[in-house]
This record gives sequence, C-alpha cells and structure tokens, in this order.
Amino acid sequence: MNSFGRIFRINIFGESHGPGVGVVIDGCQAGIPLSVSDFEKDLSRRKSGAKGTTPRKEEDLPNLLSGIYNNHSTGAPIGVFFENKNTRSSDYSKLKDIPRPGHADFVASQKFGGFQDYRGGGHFSGRLTLALVAAGVVAKKMLGNVEINAQLIEAGGSSDIEKAVEKALEMDDSIGGLVECCIRNVPVGLGEPFFDSVESALSHIVFAIPATKGIEFGSGFSAAAMRGSEHNDNIIRESGKTETNYAGGINGGISNGNEIIFRVAIKPASSTSRSQTTMNMKSGKMEDLVIEGRHDKCIALRVPPVLEAAAAIVMADLLLLEQKNVKVNHPGR
Amino acid sequence: MNSFGRIFRINIFGESHGPGVGVVIDGCQAGIPLSVSDFEKDLSRRKSGAKGTTPRKEEDLPNLLSGIYNNHSTGAPIGVFFENKNTRSSDYSKLKDIPRPGHADFVASQKFGGFQDYRGGGHFSGRLTLALVAAGVVAKKMLGNVEINAQLIEAGGSSDIEKAVEKALEMDDSIGGLVECCIRNVPVGLGEPFFDSVESALSHIVFAIPATKGIEFGSGFSAAAMRGSEHNDNIIRESGKTETNYAGGINGGISNGNEIIFRVAIKPASSTSRSQTTMNMKSGKMEDLVIEGRHDKCIALRVPPVLEAAAAIVMADLLLLEQKNVKVNHPGR
Amino acid sequence: MNSFGRIFRINIFGESHGPGVGVVIDGCQAGIPLSVSDFEKDLSRRKSGAKGTTPRKEEDLPNLLSGIYNNHSTGAPIGVFFENKNTRSSDYSKLKDIPRPGHADFVASQKFGGFQDYRGGGHFSGRLTLALVAAGVVAKKMLGNVEINAQLIEAGGSSDIEKAVEKALEMDDSIGGLVECCIRNVPVGLGEPFFDSVESALSHIVFAIPATKGIEFGSGFSAAAMRGSEHNDNIIRESGKTETNYAGGINGGISNGNEIIFRVAIKPASSTSRSQTTMNMKSGKMEDLVIEGRHDKCIALRVPPVLEAAAAIVMADLLLLEQKNVKVNHPGR
Amino acid sequence: MNSFGRIFRINIFGESHGPGVGVVIDGCQAGIPLSVSDFEKDLSRRKSGAKGTTPRKEEDLPNLLSGIYNNHSTGAPIGVFFENKNTRSSDYSKLKDIPRPGHADFVASQKFGGFQDYRGGGHFSGRLTLALVAAGVVAKKMLGNVEINAQLIEAGGSSDIEKAVEKALEMDDSIGGLVECCIRNVPVGLGEPFFDSVESALSHIVFAIPATKGIEFGSGFSAAAMRGSEHNDNIIRESGKTETNYAGGINGGISNGNEIIFRVAIKPASSTSRSQTTMNMKSGKMEDLVIEGRHDKCIALRVPPVLEAAAAIVMADLLLLEQKNVKVNHPGR
Repeated sequence: MNSFGRIFRINIFGESHGPGVGVVIDGCQAGIPLSVSDFEKDLSRRKSGAKGTTPRKEEDLPNLLSGIYNNHSTGAPIGVFFENKNTRSSDYSKLKDIPRPGHADFVASQKFGGFQDYRGGGHFSGRLTLALVAAGVVAKKMLGNVEINAQLIEAGGSSDIEKAVEKALEMDDSIGGLVECCIRNVPVGLGEPFFDSVESALSHIVFAIPATKGIEFGSGFSAAAMRGSEHNDNIIRESGKTETNYAGGINGGISNGNEIIFRVAIKPASSTSRSQTTMNMKSGKMEDLVIEGRHDKCIALRVPPVLEAAAAIVMADLLLLEQKNVKVNHPGR
Repeated sequence: MNSFGRIFRINIFGESHGPGVGVVIDGCQAGIPLSVSDFEKDLSRRKSGAKGTTPRKEEDLPNLLSGIYNNHSTGAPIGVFFENKNTRSSDYSKLKDIPRPGHADFVASQKFGGFQDYRGGGHFSGRLTLALVAAGVVAKKMLGNVEINAQLIEAGGSSDIEKAVEKALEMDDSIGGLVECCIRNVPVGLGEPFFDSVESALSHIVFAIPATKGIEFGSGFSAAAMRGSEHNDNIIRESGKTETNYAGGINGGISNGNEIIFRVAIKPASSTSRSQTTMNMKSGKMEDLVIEGRHDKCIALRVPPVLEAAAAIVMADLLLLEQKNVKVNHPGR
Repeated sequence: MNSFGRIFRINIFGESHGPGVGVVIDGCQAGIPLSVSDFEKDLSRRKSGAKGTTPRKEEDLPNLLSGIYNNHSTGAPIGVFFENKNTRSSDYSKLKDIPRPGHADFVASQKFGGFQDYRGGGHFSGRLTLALVAAGVVAKKMLGNVEINAQLIEAGGSSDIEKAVEKALEMDDSIGGLVECCIRNVPVGLGEPFFDSVESALSHIVFAIPATKGIEFGSGFSAAAMRGSEHNDNIIRESGKTETNYAGGINGGISNGNEIIFRVAIKPASSTSRSQTTMNMKSGKMEDLVIEGRHDKCIALRVPPVLEAAAAIVMADLLLLEQKNVKVNHPGR
Repeated sequence: MNSFGRIFRINIFGESHGPGVGVVIDGCQAGIPLSVSDFEKDLSRRKSGAKGTTPRKEEDLPNLLSGIYNNHSTGAPIGVFFENKNTRSSDYSKLKDIPRPGHADFVASQKFGGFQDYRGGGHFSGRLTLALVAAGVVAKKMLGNVEINAQLIEAGGSSDIEKAVEKALEMDDSIGGLVECCIRNVPVGLGEPFFDSVESALSHIVFAIPATKGIEFGSGFSAAAMRGSEHNDNIIRESGKTETNYAGGINGGISNGNEIIFRVAIKPASSTSRSQTTMNMKSGKMEDLVIEGRHDKCIALRVPPVLEAAAAIVMADLLLLEQKNVKVNHPGR
C-alpha cells in the first residue's frame, strides 16, 4: 500500500513526529554514481524557509542505509532515512478527538481504530514527501538526458506569485496553487495501452502528493470544449514531432516523443490560523477550533521538487519496463 | 500491463478488428448472482446508436467462458468474451504508413516495431472499453448499497448537450465533453494514504479510458484559487458528514463518508471527416488525409457507462482490500 | 490469484466441465512468429491417450482470440481458449456432498460456500494445465537458445516406467512419479537475491501444477547429508562453468551459467477405482465411495510438457526482467 | 525484487558489512501490541553463539523506525533497522576477484557489473535473514491461535544433531541439515487454486532463505513411490480432519484444516576452512583458496527461527487475503 512502481519500485515509511521518514528504492541499476551530496539540491528545494512556508526547520540529512558502495549504486535496494529532530508534538495532543477540517484526522481515526499516530498528521503528513524527493534523486540519475522541470505558475488564482503569498500572509490564511511539469527528451514508446498508460502512472503517483485536487495533460480540461480538427496535432517530422502539442506528448497512453506536459491543482493547506468549526468526537458537540502548530501558508510553493521527483520515479520505471522490448536473439524467428 | 486491481483484478485483451474483445475477472466473491441478462443494461448504454455515435453496430453478446455456475459466481476467475462481427477492415489498410493525427498509430508502430494490428486502432481501440463495462457489471454486484452514477454535463463547451451534438453533426467535426461521476454510500475508510489513495486508484483506471485528458476531485482545479478557510469542509455529524464537499468525499486519500465526486475531461474523437495533414512514414512526405471509416462525433456521449464501470472496479477492489482490517481474533492481544 | 509473472504475465481461467479453459498472456514481445500449428506439439504431448492416462479425449484446438496478427505476436495480450467438448458431468453430481479423499472437493466447498463448480474438480481440475502448456509455447518462443527438457525418471518407485504403469493397471490403482527438468544455455545473472530467486520463481509455479508434493534443485535433499567441501562446485572456466553441479545451476538465487536442474515429486492421482471411505457432509456419516468417471492411472506421465511450460514461463519472465540491467546511456555517470 | 507478499508485504534491504539490515512491513493491522521486547525471543534464537555457529557476535537491537505508537501498531508501515557493528571487512577484500565456490560472488559480479558490495556476501548475506525474523515477529502477532514450530531434525545425515555438529567441528568442515516446520490450527480455506496455492507461497519465500535446496509437503518425495489408495487421506470429521496426513494439510493448494507440514533441505555452508580450488577472474588461472573470516559450521542450526518467520509471513498474508471472502452485505442478491 506504501509502495509504487513495477521495476523501479519505492516503499515509503515514517511519520511526522516519530523517529523519522524513509524510503527503500528497489530496481535501481548498478553502477550509478550516488553519494549524500547528490541529494542536497532537491532536498533543499523542498525545504521550508521561503516566505509562506512553515517555520519548522529540519536538517533533512539523508542517512544512506544500504545499496551504495564506493559511491555507486550496487544493484541492491537503496535505503534512505531522515531523522525527525525538530518536533513539537504537544501542539497536537488536543486534536486526538477533534478532527481538523480538511485533514485526514477523522478518516485515520476511523480506519485505524484510534491507533494511528495523530501527531502532526502522523503517516499522512506532507513530511513523507521527503521520501519521494529522495527516491526522485535516484530516479533522475537513471533518466539519461530526459529532463524534468516543474514550476508553480499560479498561486491563489494569480500568476504573480510573490504578491499572492504576501496577501496570504496578510490575511493569515492559506492559499492554493497550480503547478506545471514538463518532461523533455522522452523517447517514443514509453507506457502501455490502457492500465499502464503514461497518464495512469503519472496521475497515480501525483495523487499520492498531499493536497492534489486535479491533474490534466496537454490541452486538459479545455479539450472538453474543443473540436477534433482543432485538437489533433499534425505530425510534421519522422521523429513524430507535432506542430501543436494538445496531446501533451502522449497518444494512446504512449509517449510520442514530444514534451510531456501536465498541470496539477494544489488546494490551500488545510491548516490555517483562522478559527473553524468542527465536531468533538468525544462529546458529539460542535466546537470552535484554532489550529496552532507551524504551517505552510502556500504549500504549493514546495510542490515543484516533489512533483519532479514523482515524475522522475515514473519515467525511470517506464524506461526500465520498456527495456523488455529490447530485441534479444530469437533463433526461432 | 493489461491488468488492473489488487484483489478484484481484471485483465483485458482483444482488438477492434480481430476475433473479439474479452476480460478475465479475478477475485470476485463466490455466490453473487450473475447471468447474461445482468450485462444487458450497461452494455446497451455503452452501445452506439444515438445521434453523434458511430454507425458501426455490434451485438455485443457476452460469452461467459468461466467462473459462473448455476447463475452464480463460483469464486473462480470469470472470463467474458465478445466477438467482433461488424468489422470493415479495408477501411484501415492504407493507414499502415500514414499515422492519423491524434491517434496511437505512430506510437504503436514505433513501440511494436510495425507488428501491431493497426486495423481500427487494434488493441488501442475504444472497443476495449467493452471489457471494462463487462467487468464493471460484476464489480457493481459486489458493491452492496454503494451507488455510482456518471453523466455527461457538457459537450463542446455547452451544457445543452443535444444542441452541441447537432452542431457537431452540422460541422461534420468531432467534439469533446465533460463527464461527472458521483459515488454514494461509500463507507468511511476506503483507500490508503499515498500510493493507494482513492484518487490514485480512480485516476489510474480513468486515464485508461481512451480520450481522457484530465480528472479533478471535488473542488478540483478551482481549489488552486481558493483560501484554506473557504476550502475546508466543516464536519457536522459524527458520521463525518460535512457541510460542504470541496474534498470530493476524500481526505488524505481515504473516503470520508461523503459523496465521492469527480469530473473527467474527454477530448474530441481524433477521427474526424475533415481533411488533415500528416506525414507519410514511408515516403517521408507530408500528405493530406481524409479519414473514412465509421466514427463517433461525440465520443463523450458513450463515456458515462464506461466511467461508472471503471469507478465500480476501483470501489470493489478497495472494499475487498479494506476487509484486511476486519478484526480477527487476536488472542495475543 | 490466477495470474503469474512480473513482465511476461499469464492469467488462467476455466473449469473442467464448463465452456472451456483459457489463458491471457501479457508482456510478450512483438514480432514473434506464432500460429496455431506452433501449439500442436506440446499440446499433443500433454494429451491423454498413452497407457495409464485417462480415456477422456479432447481435441484441444487453441482458439487464438487476440494478440496475433499476420502470424506474429503484436505486443498486445494474447488470448487463447480451448473449448471443453467431451464432458460427462453426470459422473460427478453425487459428489457434491461427498468429498473425495485427496481431492479439493472439501476445501473448495468450504472456501466458496458451496458455490464452486464441483463437476470434474471445476477450476481445480488438471485440465487447467492446458492453459499453462499454451502459455509455455509462447514463452519458449521468447527464450532464444535456452532449452528446456523434462522427463519422467521414476514411476511408482521404479525407473522402469513401462512396467510400473502396467502394474498400476493390473492393480487398478494410481501411482506417483518423479520428473526431472533440465534448462540449458541459461545466461549468467537471471533471478534476484531473495524473493525473486530462480528457485523461488520456479517452485512458485511448479506447486501450481496439481499433484506436486516436492521440489529440489541440484543436490536437493541429499545436500542435507553432505559436507561443504564436497558440495561446493569448483569454478573451472571464466564463463563460470563448474566441475560438479550440486548447485543445480543457481547460486544466491541467480543463474550461474551451468545447467539448471530440478526434480519434482508427483503424487498418485487421487482418483482411484478402489473403494475408499469418506464422510458424507450432508448426513455427517462415514460412507464407502467408489469413484467412477475417467481418470489417469499415472498422472506423472503427463507432467513433463506441463513442467517444461512452467519452466519456460519463468525463464521468459526472468529474461525480460533482466533486460532492466541493459545499460542505457547515462550522461550523468 | 526485494519485496514479498500481497497484503501483508515486506521489503528487505541491507548488506553484511554496510550500515546494517532492515525491513519495511506494510499491511499490518492497527492495534497490535508491539515493542522492542517482542522481538527479543526470535532474534535471540536466530543469533549465533551455540556450538557450530559463527563467532561473529552482533547485538541485533531492533530500531523501530515507524508504524508503532504507544506500543501498538498504527496501521502505517513498520520500519525496523539493525545496525552492523561487528564487521571485519578486511577479511573479504581479496575475494573481489576470486569467487568462492558455492557462493554468490561470481554471479553477483556478473549481474551487477562489479559494482556489488562484495564484503561478507554483501546483499546476498545470510545476515538478511535478520529482516525476515523481524517481519516474522510482527506476522506471528497477527496469526491468532495459528502456531508455527520449526526444528532441525537431521544434521549431516544424522538425527543425533549434537554428535553431528561435534564431528563437523572435528573435521573442520561444514554440514547440511533437514528442518521440519509444522503449522497448527490453520483455518480451512487459506490459499488459492494454482498460483497462490499455500505450497506456492511457502516455497517461494522458503527458497529466499540462503542455503535451501529442496522443500516437500506432507508425504513429499516419498509420494512418488506411493499408490493412490495408500496416499489418499480419509476424511473422518466434519471439520475436515483426516485419518492420515499425507497431504500435509493442503488439498488443491488450499489449507484443509489439518496440520500443514513441510520439510526443507539445507545445504552445508559454502564457507569452509578447508582449502578449495577456484578461478582467479583477473588472471584467468586456477588458484587454491582458504576462506578465513568467521563462519557457521552448521548453518542449519540457525534456520528454524528463520523458517518459522517465513511461514508466519505467508500465513499472515493468506489470512488477510482470505478476508476478501468475508461476506459483506449484498442487497443485490
């Protein structure tokens, strides 16, 4: 339930306020250069610190537990673990019976019979995206010249993101955002018809990123209002290069050699300093709730490196899976 | 690659112009009443025939190959096969070297080295959704009082769908549409955090439906422009019932007991009678192309029963998976 | 539950006395020559007819439902279906409440709440091995020069198999046997440490063959009484060729380039014409039972082609999986 | 490749001389009492120290990284990590080019292109069974009154195991052994026909235990020489209790309510102090090799707790999987 991928396969674990967060990465080819410093850039991009992000600071040093020797991957599973150091769990104790609106508190309590670790959202915490980013670092190393780039293109409904964040700080409320991801230099032929389509694989992992509400590829939702003669991308090169890219780089679930483009809608963080109303599950009475703790005003600011990691994990897996079609010697043919 | 699900597991096969299309459905509980007549309603809803749909008519009689005895499921895998009868493959022969814009012709040829069955889109054909609908019929039988309802809410950008279709016929062009799906009476607790979130599972299968360009849950893309204090759904009942439903019935990837609501963007069918430009892969020259064959003007008209089936397959799987949490006797506790 | 394999993946379905038996084969490379005649040899080897096998005769014509076009695999899933024609179900009706000793009647009834198709063993029937053999035919085509050969080396405790069968016919009782399988020209490096070891994969599918009671690789059970200095196979060539082959061609779960050798113990068929004692589940009383129907005196006679197919399915999957280690261009290195 | 199980799912990682060895355990029900002390007994049984086992001593303290809160499982994945402390890697440096006979050195080098961690067998080391035992502790907690007991019944060909070990020490050579495992109080109906048979699942994980050469269920290899009228177990109780248990508690792949019995053949440890001959892969010349390091004389002595853990992992998974057949409310029936 906490693993993803067919060949390049990751398994995440951990909680917000437990000992830490980790990931086991299986199916990584041997011989890929890997050391702690390779993780720095993306981990630091994911970190809080910018205006609009939570004041909780964590070192986020990756402990490489296995699968690496002499600064190269060995072909064995790679374990990475991040300790939690800056936790303030007392912030959450009173939330045990008072589910925060928009959070997983209520469903977690119902699903796990009250045994869940509720501190800071426990296993549901956005802190688990640290494990995704770490796996993404390894995945990116396997992608050759495939390039992945995600950026926040709108926050709080505006493309002036700096202003939007300032306004959120002024209002003392959280805001949502729109993140676009572009994957370049993808070979033709990745993905499978139907259940392992590129879109299926990408959307599957993207909805594992907390706060995601929607995903669209290429023309996306605007396609619903288009005509076929408009929407079809004319092929203009033998490489499959098309004039337009409404398809978003994918036909029939398979990469067509053009840029893969998709956009993801991120809701405003559920934690907001404003007073809200919810039900106290112990008393059965409605209650006012002000969430203290330390939170992100614009969680979408931190999504791009996570989305890149998610996309890289999918692309690495699809690339390895496509190797199955590498022609071996068939004397029977 | 052509299978989906963890416990309630389907495996589809077939082509548009080969012997037929089929599905093997594994993990179905024993004792569920099932006979040919149970398939009629949804198969007929999926069929063409209405204005705006293809003139290709198929009987679509389900051959029940296994897993059913005395009109009940036996617990063994259920095989269902539909023969293709009304094929006109000569329509497609000249397309072998001339990939139709917007279709999978080019990627299929590249991926499968020219060995793909290119007639009518082969294994990429929308005819494979017949297998999904058949599996959905079985899935729906396992859902108890969970109800799934999908409907086309917009076509060609307009909510007057009848007019939109007439206009498409007049223009002799295809149009896209927007389909909304609502799942009622879902128990709290289905789905898992992260990779097996309800959204991950639903989006995974939904993007297996040809022509899908986007999916959004609850508030969806509008969430990107909202504030947290607006977006949070206040819990007003001990059952988890919320005042609003921006979450679309899901928190932290887990069903919260409210209606699960999602919308899917369907692009206009790539086949249009209008002349288009593409590259002849044999000659390397650009060519004008008029697609003959028989096609749908508004493929979105036929999506609702397919989307319901897809949703039912996911819900059946998540329901069975959640049984793992049924408390067994733990003397060790 | 009825599927096997990671990339080369099969899904079997069907019953002994229902419409038939079939298999969906996914992950087959495109471009492999395949037509009905390719199936003849192995299907015919599996067939009954020899002394000691059941008098039930079936044509066993493979209906190729999908995945093949112009006599080559297309890369899409291959569906194969065999109709049951020579069924005499009345033979079994009285067995509904009287579980045959050694058969799955009792467990099937308990597991599936009485809804199982009990005729001829239903989905538990050895007739399902037809699906394995068909999948094996496709798998063998993917193996290049890897050769698989299985043979019955003992029946009823004797290596004179003909005599053993004659004796069984005389006694009117069934007998067991020992089958050895040898896989030649296996490249070094197939399989994975631990859970995807060559032995794990082979034993997994071999125990899916009805009547299997044991499996051993190389030295097998005799290793338990050996010393390390005896058992170790000295490497005498750079290719990894060893002097002896106690390892059975596998070290640490990985093929070492020597012949993979394993032996499988097959129990005597449970159906025997001799009178037996069992419990009538309706009356709760012990009863004498004489099984009529048509049965194999030495089921082990029919195991070799099934075992070869099972081994071929595993080897095809491991070969495709190992392609993941094909070095792609790593500019990052 | 390093994960096992369908619902109760484990993922192992680590090396003999790297930072340590670990496991992520997913699919564990919430609310199961679990703390460090629960691991002590089985970890200590697996430890070396007895006559005939390696002098390498490790504390084997389980670091519980996640999934446990207030001494109960939370329903989130459980991470457990064991640090390696007592490593003497210099023992192994010269083995890089000289593959030890019977070891995975040669195949690892070929498969992973020389990038494998070769110290102490790296990821192929028996030390990884620590991860299995830890997962088994959690699994056993989920089994209710199902009891699993494994014991060494033969070593070096003798049932006087103490004497056999002494003789091995005298000879300064390693010896093999035979381990029997018995699972009691298994409910009727676990497992699935064919690929998820109880035997398939058990043999799959058992062959992941280093040094395993064979497995047999119930009558096992002796069945090959038996007659059907002898081998069939007569049912003598409505519970399915049989007079004899040649079936080893399994019919048609499904547990029949009797004791599940299987035996496993363990080869002598490949590391022996005696001089051996192998090929130096660098020089291409044959060489004499004396393995120093610290090793087990009778590795079979340490197998019982590992085998119990493996069996427990399978039983936990099959129990959870069988919950799918728990009848839910089917208003449609």
